[in-house]
Amino acid sequence: MADYPDANNPWRGRCRIPFERLDRERAAAERTLAKIVSQPAVSAKGDDLGPVAERLARLMRDCGLESAVLPTGGAPIVFGKRKESDRLPTILVYGHYDVQPVEPLSAWSSDPFTPVIRDGRMYGRGTADNKGQHLAQLLAMKAVLEAYGRLPVNVVMIVEGEEEIGSPNLERWVAEHAHLLRADFAYTSDGAVHPSGRPVVLCGSRGLLYLELTLRVASADRHSGNFGGVSRNAALELARVIGSLWGDDGEIAVPGFCDAVAEPADEERAAVAALPLTWPIPASEMLPRVDSPSDWFGRVLLRPNLNVSGLGSGWTGPSMKTVIPATATAKLDVRLVPDQDPHDVARLITEWVRAQAPDVEVDVISAVKPSRTPLDSPVVERVSQAVEFAWEHPPLVYPSLAGTVPDFVFTSTLALPSVIVPYGNADQANHAPDENMLLDFFHKGARTFVSVLHAFAP
Amino acid sequence: MADYPDANNPWRGRCRIPFERLDRERAAAERTLAKIVSQPAVSAKGDDLGPVAERLARLMRDCGLESAVLPTGGAPIVFGKRKESDRLPTILVYGHYDVQPVEPLSAWSSDPFTPVIRDGRMYGRGTADNKGQHLAQLLAMKAVLEAYGRLPVNVVMIVEGEEEIGSPNLERWVAEHAHLLRADFAYTSDGAVHPSGRPVVLCGSRGLLYLELTLRVASADRHSGNFGGVSRNAALELARVIGSLWGDDGEIAVPGFCDAVAEPADEERAAVAALPLTWPIPASEMLPRVDSPSDWFGRVLLRPNLNVSGLGSGWTGPSMKTVIPATATAKLDVRLVPDQDPHDVARLITEWVRAQAPDVEVDVISAVKPSRTPLDSPVVERVSQAVEFAWEHPPLVYPSLAGTVPDFVFTSTLALPSVIVPYGNADQANHAPDENMLLDFFHKGARTFVSVLHAFAP
Repeated sequence: MADYPDANNPWRGRCRIPFERLDRERAAAERTLAKIVSQPAVSAKGDDLGPVAERLARLMRDCGLESAVLPTGGAPIVFGKRKESDRLPTILVYGHYDVQPVEPLSAWSSDPFTPVIRDGRMYGRGTADNKGQHLAQLLAMKAVLEAYGRLPVNVVMIVEGEEEIGSPNLERWVAEHAHLLRADFAYTSDGAVHPSGRPVVLCGSRGLLYLELTLRVASADRHSGNFGGVSRNAALELARVIGSLWGDDGEIAVPGFCDAVAEPADEERAAVAALPLTWPIPASEMLPRVDSPSDWFGRVLLRPNLNVSGLGSGWTGPSMKTVIPATATAKLDVRLVPDQDPHDVARLITEWVRAQAPDVEVDVISAVKPSRTPLDSPVVERVSQAVEFAWEHPPLVYPSLAGTVPDFVFTSTLALPSVIVPYGNADQANHAPDENMLLDFFHKGARTFVSVLHAFAP
Repeated sequence: MADYPDANNPWRGRCRIPFERLDRERAAAERTLAKIVSQPAVSAKGDDLGPVAERLARLMRDCGLESAVLPTGGAPIVFGKRKESDRLPTILVYGHYDVQPVEPLSAWSSDPFTPVIRDGRMYGRGTADNKGQHLAQLLAMKAVLEAYGRLPVNVVMIVEGEEEIGSPNLERWVAEHAHLLRADFAYTSDGAVHPSGRPVVLCGSRGLLYLELTLRVASADRHSGNFGGVSRNAALELARVIGSLWGDDGEIAVPGFCDAVAEPADEERAAVAALPLTWPIPASEMLPRVDSPSDWFGRVLLRPNLNVSGLGSGWTGPSMKTVIPATATAKLDVRLVPDQDPHDVARLITEWVRAQAPDVEVDVISAVKPSRTPLDSPVVERVSQAVEFAWEHPPLVYPSLAGTVPDFVFTSTLALPSVIVPYGNADQANHAPDENMLLDFFHKGARTFVSVLHAFAP
């Protein structure tokens, strides 16, 4: 303990011993990751995630935190805490243990819940999103505690089980448990580093509105010979509604959709323009209106979007069935930027949809607000230094995550600065078949959090 | 045998004894119907229908026919035959033992393959479409044979197992087995009588073209946060293609779709105009452009139609999944009238679809030609007289069935006159949940075929 913490020494030097421990324990860390990936926790299926949460709480304790499984009304939150001293700053760490559905199963090269390592990557649902990322924080704390017996700062950690269904209980739970969550800033690892492998620091998240559209036009499916072309067809009517959401130019046609979008700050535009980008997927799969990788990134970081993520009606099985579908459903997801409010946007979309087809019912499945921490916040600077030390490259600083994490509960509900430091590889295939995490990045993630812990020591 | 057949006596008198036998055997007939309905034969599922065919062949033998199960390459054809004399005319009887899929199962009031009788109807998949109808012919022959020891005409019967998937093997099989099928006319019972309960005689069938549209725009589903609005979305693109198939006026927008449609004959228009019709479903479920029941019937008997019977893409399960679907599929069914050729229409639709979205693949799942027998054919007149005798009402004579039976194999391949005499009730819910057959009509069906057999005795 002699050399810890020593304000006269640069914090970077304190990382050496934990880094060495992490290097020695790589195989054990990968076994732990495989173990938690093999515990399915698909929140969209409505399974009981309590047992998975209990196992995670035990893992937290193994890593040196006090831990408890706390109810939310939905899947429980795994709460962790290590308080070293009132005089030390506190980092609030967020992660999620739930995962996306695995369908279509046939598109996976190996079973999604039987993790396998191929070419330096671990494949399995949840490897990168988000188990490998919050496990990295836990292993970092374990290594620091084994090296020094204490952490350089206080830590509070919450790992929720409903992120992939839009965190329906998180905002209320955080508001009700604010006394447990006092901290200086929030720290989340989710998403991916730059495709080149350079680390990134993100200062916000797009919001998410998820809508389900349902249309019923008849009491039952009918025979297409007797009634085709003379009675209403739900598949056709809803297809036309879906088509109406975008103009022929591919832009969102819902009136007012962009009205609340705040003009991005100059430094946000500059940050995006400075990103060294290449096409992350075959250019042929991009829409023609996206004229460069930089344009792609500006669109997904600074602008909102409306996506249709599912469509179902009538007979979709093998061969044929000659019916007129009585019902049709569609799923829409909307990514929001400041200052769009999900409920306002839900109302605009509902009004537009009803103007096309008055019988369509629109249900809000999830509503997560966007969030933003100013790029010039001191927390952003300090975290960026710590990331640079761990990755041996300065991070790219993004104004926002293209995807959605419920960061607004920190920036809005708790009024904290919040940064997101992803450890996933850009081709992690999260939300898709063959999700994987590059193991090198998993281990770098643990180094990163060791470095962050030390960077905020007084 | 003394009083049979006697050309000096009117044929109607010869029906009395078989009618009485049918009346006495109603309970047994209903038990037989329940038994065959309880044998699932969903051709769309690709099950082995051989065992069901074998049981039907045994039933044919019980009813006095020679019978054999003959291979087709797909589900076998149950062939039946009773040859009384070279000097007698021969009726070629057609039916199908396969049934539609039952989904959505939850919409059924009782199990589709556990037939139950409620309010004078038997409920179950296949009751009316088509088991109750071809069973009526068999029970009619059994009653005549029990009464007189022979039939007044020769009968050849084929009951196929692929009608609900568009009879993919029937045309070739019929051409190859024309020597077994020599007859004076073809007789089919399928579909429904008039909603008022009046019998009908149909002189043709609309054709059916069934297409599957498949669109793949990416190698895998992608995360809607990272790629939404910048990469291609199969659900959206296919929804727009589906929407493009119809104009805003609801009319089919595919160029040339109606070019080959022959102008209906005056007597065909007159026959439709003379039909006493009421709305068969709530008027609110009809499209506004259909201004009267007569307009409805003219459209479904004399005009072609294009229907979307299924649409599927992305996540349609519970809750949410934020993906950009890589693939989308749609099922289209097209009803054709003379002189439309299904393959020509498939080409027109494919060209139009490809003009909207060049990547869409279009597969022909089924192609059944339309058929028509002239309303003034002597066969139509004689059958109509026989139907009138059995139902105690003159039939309504329709130029065509609104739905599709593969009648063209008789009118085109074998160049025979062909009539369709449905025994089903108008609210039979065929192709839909709670399919049922009014038992009174099932029994009237058996009387009808007794009467038809006698009407063609020399």
